[in-house]
Amino acid sequence: MSTAAKGLFISFEGIDGSGKSTQTKLLKDRLEADGHQVVLTREPGGSAGAEEIRALVLQGDPDRWSARTEILLFTAARRDHLERTILPALEAGKIVICDRFADSTRMYQGLSRGDLRGAVDQLHSLMIGVEPDVTVLIDMDPGEGLSRALSRNTVEERFEDFGESLQVAMRAGFLSLAAEFPDRFVTINGAQSIDAVAADVFAQVRPRLDAR
Amino acid sequence: MSTAAKGLFISFEGIDGSGKSTQTKLLKDRLEADGHQVVLTREPGGSAGAEEIRALVLQGDPDRWSARTEILLFTAARRDHLERTILPALEAGKIVICDRFADSTRMYQGLSRGDLRGAVDQLHSLMIGVEPDVTVLIDMDPGEGLSRALSRNTVEERFEDFGESLQVAMRAGFLSLAAEFPDRFVTINGAQSIDAVAADVFAQVRPRLDAR
Repeated sequence: MSTAAKGLFISFEGIDGSGKSTQTKLLKDRLEADGHQVVLTREPGGSAGAEEIRALVLQGDPDRWSARTEILLFTAARRDHLERTILPALEAGKIVICDRFADSTRMYQGLSRGDLRGAVDQLHSLMIGVEPDVTVLIDMDPGEGLSRALSRNTVEERFEDFGESLQVAMRAGFLSLAAEFPDRFVTINGAQSIDAVAADVFAQVRPRLDAR
Repeated sequence: MSTAAKGLFISFEGIDGSGKSTQTKLLKDRLEADGHQVVLTREPGGSAGAEEIRALVLQGDPDRWSARTEILLFTAARRDHLERTILPALEAGKIVICDRFADSTRMYQGLSRGDLRGAVDQLHSLMIGVEPDVTVLIDMDPGEGLSRALSRNTVEERFEDFGESLQVAMRAGFLSLAAEFPDRFVTINGAQSIDAVAADVFAQVRPRLDAR
């Protein structure tokens, strides 16, 4: 029997408009060009069931769910995503690139909707229990990030409706998480050109690939 | 200012076909005839959001959600139900009668779908934190309960599809919960006539009303 390659779980985090989604695609292309098998996914969503939960959470009246109910729904979606998409890919030796994971919940729910960080962490520990091998934080000036985000038109506007002062708090929150988990987080300057950011991302990911 | 009456939170539990739903309605009628304000509700569901989550959980392929994801979805529904329906009614001094509450999750998920009772309890403690003042267990021979349940036709067949051996385990599980929480549970013999069961239920509930 051949020895299966170990998978690698990479998450991307950052404020709205930071260029996360573009960078996940560029990293996928680069890794595939090098012969790796890559699964690109996103949260909330990323599996059939999780996408249904995503729709339930993000559409409709912003006040339809309380902060605690929303955390539970996001955690249910994450559990489904983990079981149906992420873990099977990792077990098959693939690289999983995920646009947002639990750190976004720690930030958005824990910071913006009451002091629920403790509950988020306990829920994660109890029902998820998995962290990415590496989390790429695309750090970005909130003013620039917001103007990029607002230039998109989607029905899922809730989180982008909170405005720039929240984005400032989010940026600080993500940087604080990066300081809290230095072994896992790498912080990239998102104010550079797309190609320069992509080169920085790959430079940070490559040693983690080689270390598998 | 008048002193507001204190609410009372009554849940009903029991295996499928035990007559819970009939008894909740009879108790509501009796209490209303005595001048009480009563809110009759049920789980999963009981609020607009929780009903949407209920539909997501109970319809479709029985294997679409894992046990852990299902527990999270039920807990999200319960949190919404609690915040939107149960707590406002109790705060207004009303009596809340709920057809199934957290004890059903302890049983169905904890017993039938793996040894998840510990996770259910921790999740409840973290995100719900409320127990009924009194839980009425309608105890019933599983063979009789099953034949009653199968005589109904609904799209939400999943839990009733498991058959009699599971119902036997459920009955034992509910009786075990009643022994675990003797201050809260009252166990009623469901094999009697509907009127006799209703009289027993009311006899058990009346002193809790008077003690408010």
